[in-house]
Amino acid sequence: MYKAKIYVNYKPSVLDPKAEAIKTALTRMDHQNVQDVLYGKYFELTLDGTDEAAVRDQVESICDQLLANVNMETYRFDLEAV
Amino acid sequence: MYKAKIYVNYKPSVLDPKAEAIKTALTRMDHQNVQDVLYGKYFELTLDGTDEAAVRDQVESICDQLLANVNMETYRFDLEAV
Repeated sequence: MYKAKIYVNYKPSVLDPKAEAIKTALTRMDHQNVQDVLYGKYFELTLDGTDEAAVRDQVESICDQLLANVNMETYRFDLEAV
Repeated sequence: MYKAKIYVNYKPSVLDPKAEAIKTALTRMDHQNVQDVLYGKYFELTLDGTDEAAVRDQVESICDQLLANVNMETYRFDLEAV
């Protein structure tokens, strides 16, 4: 069995409205020392399987076809045997 | 300077509609080996500061007051010097 920890974020070229809103709110809350904010989605998938390469390919296609909008977002994931 | 990696998820007692929708979609896409799906928000904050304990307290209050709905969500974070 494997656990995939998937991070999906906006591409650097895309303005991230939620991160901008958080920066504004933090400034209003007097958190002047916050230099940068990154916002994204986080998924954990638990998958049956014994062949790590096959599971890695599967997670990649799940990200491409479902979890990430590849036009605007990028993803990365860690895969660990559990 | 510190980087806080923050994970915000629904409490186990709260039904996670997005995770349920993803499970359904994965089954329809014939990914029968996916045993569980966890969905959450992921934030990275870069903060000026030299006192780790003070930065830790600050990140905690930012989570409590802004990034997490503490009625329905839990959060955890890693803090590393950068």
